[in-house]
Amino acid sequence: MRLYIILVEIEGGINLGLITRLADNFDVEEIRLVNPKLTDEEYELAEIFASHSKHRIKEYRFLKNLDEAIEDLDIVFATSAKATREGSGFRRRYVTPMEAVEMAGRYGDKVGIVFGRESTGLTIEEIGKCDLLIYIPTSEKYRALNITHAAAIILYEFYIRREDITSKYIKKKVDKELINRALEYFETLANKVIKDDEYKQKSVYAFKNILYRGRPDYREIKIVLRVLSKLARIFNK
Amino acid sequence: MRLYIILVEIEGGINLGLITRLADNFDVEEIRLVNPKLTDEEYELAEIFASHSKHRIKEYRFLKNLDEAIEDLDIVFATSAKATREGSGFRRRYVTPMEAVEMAGRYGDKVGIVFGRESTGLTIEEIGKCDLLIYIPTSEKYRALNITHAAAIILYEFYIRREDITSKYIKKKVDKELINRALEYFETLANKVIKDDEYKQKSVYAFKNILYRGRPDYREIKIVLRVLSKLARIFNK
Repeated sequence: MRLYIILVEIEGGINLGLITRLADNFDVEEIRLVNPKLTDEEYELAEIFASHSKHRIKEYRFLKNLDEAIEDLDIVFATSAKATREGSGFRRRYVTPMEAVEMAGRYGDKVGIVFGRESTGLTIEEIGKCDLLIYIPTSEKYRALNITHAAAIILYEFYIRREDITSKYIKKKVDKELINRALEYFETLANKVIKDDEYKQKSVYAFKNILYRGRPDYREIKIVLRVLSKLARIFNK
Repeated sequence: MRLYIILVEIEGGINLGLITRLADNFDVEEIRLVNPKLTDEEYELAEIFASHSKHRIKEYRFLKNLDEAIEDLDIVFATSAKATREGSGFRRRYVTPMEAVEMAGRYGDKVGIVFGRESTGLTIEEIGKCDLLIYIPTSEKYRALNITHAAAIILYEFYIRREDITSKYIKKKVDKELINRALEYFETLANKVIKDDEYKQKSVYAFKNILYRGRPDYREIKIVLRVLSKLARIFNK
């Protein structure tokens, strides 16, 4: 399992430096910066706070938008301090860091973890582009974690458990293309039966959550796919 | 289970601020500062980086030395980036954060976690004053975590698991006094049979590790205590 950190419009050099150090602490493959909001002074701070990992600063990959930054990855987790287990905001439904590691093992080798702006986090649209949302349970006293602490906790959970997970699932990987096809068929079907655009989109997000969290194996997803494709064909007649 | 963070000679205001914020994120009871090495400017930085938790800065408890800072606590964990599972440096033997939570539940309500200087960590003498050492497994690329990231990971592990642990063990708490008495008897015995002071002290540290990690219940520790006390009485004749 290889980890990719994606930072969307990061605003602080200290944070970037500390995350760069964490990348070495926990064997992260690559740091990708989407449209960073940093001055030259902030990059200098990044170098100081990266400490012995400052060499990695030369290896950042810069990308124009989130789509480009995640297109080659097998599974992509958004992160947010606003998340829920219930309610109709399906893009806000979350998995814990521990659950995320377990799930990642089923979907392939390249795992992306996306962090948003320090001030406002990820937009709901950006979360929707990712496969699942990670939320770190915290006290009611103060819900929001500093971005580097959220990264430390998530990366640690992946670090201590990913080898076990990888060896456990290596022969049972789910082809993510099958999941995406199931989602497309479902969307086609939803198109036929639901008029309200917002409600339709919601149903697609809900189905996505269920599919990913359900960690279907090859046979399971193939059967579901067959049902959905047959239904889609009938409705398209 | 109530958590107490003890910071020994902390050197950086940003770190102090970030740890103060973490204390609210993960329901820490109190932050204790042993001989902090901070200028007024550094305290100002602490206030900025504590963010919405800056009110806690007024609630720090200042203490002269580590002994005073831990004397009222039921179990105290040191932290270090230098640790081992093997070898004869028994004060360097570690438990992981997950193991620490499991153990803490057995020894009482007030749990201390001690962090050392950012530059040099805790001394081996300071580690020896604590009951057990926590070490966070990290990559060979870069072993040492930033102090606030170590705190985030440990506090998170306690936060998500301490309620389960507390309810699991609430009726089976080990009286720490019994453990300390067993240690004292063991030391008395070691005194009688081992001449080399360093070697003797080593054996006491090793026995301490085993006792704490072994999480004996009331009956078990009582029996061990009885054996040791009888032996000690014989040798003292």
